[in-house]
Amino acid sequence: MDDRPGVGRPTLETVARRARVSRQTVSNVLNSPHLVHPETRSRVERAIEVLRYRPHQAARSLRTHRSRLIGVRMEAFGDGINGSILDRFIHALTEVAEGHGYRVLVYTAADDASEIAAYEDLLGTHEIDAFILTSTHRADPRTAWLASRNTPFVTFGRPWDGTEHHSWVDVDGAAGTREATRRLCALGHQRIAFLGWPEGSGVGDDRRAGWEDALRGCGWDPAALVVAGPDGVDEGREGAHRLLDGAVPPTAFVCASDSLALGAIGALSDLGLVPGPDLPVIGFDDTAVARAIGLTSLAQPLGQAAQLCVNLMAALLGTDPDGTSTRPAHHLLRPELVVRATGLGGPPTGHPTATITSARTPTS
Amino acid sequence: MDDRPGVGRPTLETVARRARVSRQTVSNVLNSPHLVHPETRSRVERAIEVLRYRPHQAARSLRTHRSRLIGVRMEAFGDGINGSILDRFIHALTEVAEGHGYRVLVYTAADDASEIAAYEDLLGTHEIDAFILTSTHRADPRTAWLASRNTPFVTFGRPWDGTEHHSWVDVDGAAGTREATRRLCALGHQRIAFLGWPEGSGVGDDRRAGWEDALRGCGWDPAALVVAGPDGVDEGREGAHRLLDGAVPPTAFVCASDSLALGAIGALSDLGLVPGPDLPVIGFDDTAVARAIGLTSLAQPLGQAAQLCVNLMAALLGTDPDGTSTRPAHHLLRPELVVRATGLGGPPTGHPTATITSARTPTS
Repeated sequence: MDDRPGVGRPTLETVARRARVSRQTVSNVLNSPHLVHPETRSRVERAIEVLRYRPHQAARSLRTHRSRLIGVRMEAFGDGINGSILDRFIHALTEVAEGHGYRVLVYTAADDASEIAAYEDLLGTHEIDAFILTSTHRADPRTAWLASRNTPFVTFGRPWDGTEHHSWVDVDGAAGTREATRRLCALGHQRIAFLGWPEGSGVGDDRRAGWEDALRGCGWDPAALVVAGPDGVDEGREGAHRLLDGAVPPTAFVCASDSLALGAIGALSDLGLVPGPDLPVIGFDDTAVARAIGLTSLAQPLGQAAQLCVNLMAALLGTDPDGTSTRPAHHLLRPELVVRATGLGGPPTGHPTATITSARTPTS
Repeated sequence: MDDRPGVGRPTLETVARRARVSRQTVSNVLNSPHLVHPETRSRVERAIEVLRYRPHQAARSLRTHRSRLIGVRMEAFGDGINGSILDRFIHALTEVAEGHGYRVLVYTAADDASEIAAYEDLLGTHEIDAFILTSTHRADPRTAWLASRNTPFVTFGRPWDGTEHHSWVDVDGAAGTREATRRLCALGHQRIAFLGWPEGSGVGDDRRAGWEDALRGCGWDPAALVVAGPDGVDEGREGAHRLLDGAVPPTAFVCASDSLALGAIGALSDLGLVPGPDLPVIGFDDTAVARAIGLTSLAQPLGQAAQLCVNLMAALLGTDPDGTSTRPAHHLLRPELVVRATGLGGPPTGHPTATITSARTPTS
């Protein structure tokens, strides 16, 4: 519905022509702007602005057939702790999608390239209407690929390169670790350590940033209080030992995952220390393991996230009963701190069936 | 390829005509024989025998279009412990199915009736090639429905009514609890209790039967040593307390699930007792929680089960590279006893980050 004469509905092509770049470059600006030279990027952005180009509107008009199928990747199972929240997300997504008349097709992929190969296959074979992407990360080529094919998609996870050209829902990890750290500060803790992941993962950096921010706010230097490594219980245990043996032994642990937190609890047990109000340990994702062992953890509102993802998708596909919107929209949700036996002194909630003490193995 | 003149390929219709019953009755005999009067049943079985009727062969010949889509139900998430093994199964199934050129469509259903409604919708809208059913149970109407529509399916879970007319893969729960109980007997235990589910669930009765069998074998009466109730941590805790307070306090617990076992550990902690070689607790399903808390548990070989389900499905659909078989086939797999800190005295394996002692809540 462009009212300027001679222009018509803008496409990726017309934007590319006006900005004197390739289609791929326009697609990169939309989805992976870090790949594009700043000068080229602003030229393309001007063209998008002038032509009033809306990627998903183009996608909608191109598509006539509706399969009412949504594709979502099923991640590797991992240790059953950290990855389990994506299973919960897919459960919620399947239920919510059915309420909107959509079915969910799951697929696996070892990496971005094989996920893109899966898109190609799924669009060709099953005419998937839209994809919900999880585990967004820096320099994520998947969104650019989908945008360049005019395939509607929503990401659960923000685009970590700062682009805002597509619809996404995410959970504000930094807000969660900031709250947890501030509450520890308020209880008198200062040497609050962080067990995290290597720099460069959007989610990991975000969770670390909240802790760092709050720790500085309560007057302590974060530099000596952080260990970063791959996710896992053994890795968390080893990292916690390194900190506890170091120059600034922590009095509390905030962790990027429940797996790492479980490792920290193991390290404390090794030393005969009791996690709890005296030496709090706080995990992230509020997994079944956290509930089982009484671990304080930050819970992502996954049901709400799934609902919002489907709403945004329905808006892109024009099947939203509340009206259609082709404008990308974003929702950043707050995680909830669930206080249990391992931290913050509140009364245990959930199933605190066990408190964890020393690591002595029972002998017969 | 029927070589008798004038007979042609047998169908559900021809079987029904020959046995002088309705199509539905034939379908019931195939899938829910408990619903059919014994005399009618043997008449129908004779007709099946004489006509050499093969339900899935008929299904194959009727279907010309292949969607290469498999449907599988996504169960309610539950407490994240017991149900989590079905998530692991779907992960494995998705991966294995892709190796055979199939994609997996997931759906939810609140009960059998709504699952059947989902079949109807999915067959109509997405032309699903086959279904993999989970959570089979007594008087399961789903298999009869699918058979009556000539829709190929394989069940992960045997038909608990004793019918052998369709292909299935299952795990021998009784063999697992029998092995666990026998090993406890060999260590000198006699008052080995069982925390299970209410009678009537195939899986629950099966797991109980193995314990009962082994306990009688070591000369003890099971009657006073069993508590049955809904699955859950709180339920397990309550059940264990009832047994520990009773006339025959158990010296060991074998449980139908890790959730119940976690409850038993909680009950022991309440009383200041230490689960381990002195008072073993053994769960079922080897969940992430079992690994996290060092719970001995029986592990289902889910990867192998998924592989066999897809092989059987490929055989039914005639896409099996090793040749096509229309004969129903069955595989009963053995679970593996994974020994950790809570039982059988073996060295802890997995991630025994914590041993569980008394329930005192740390105070500041």
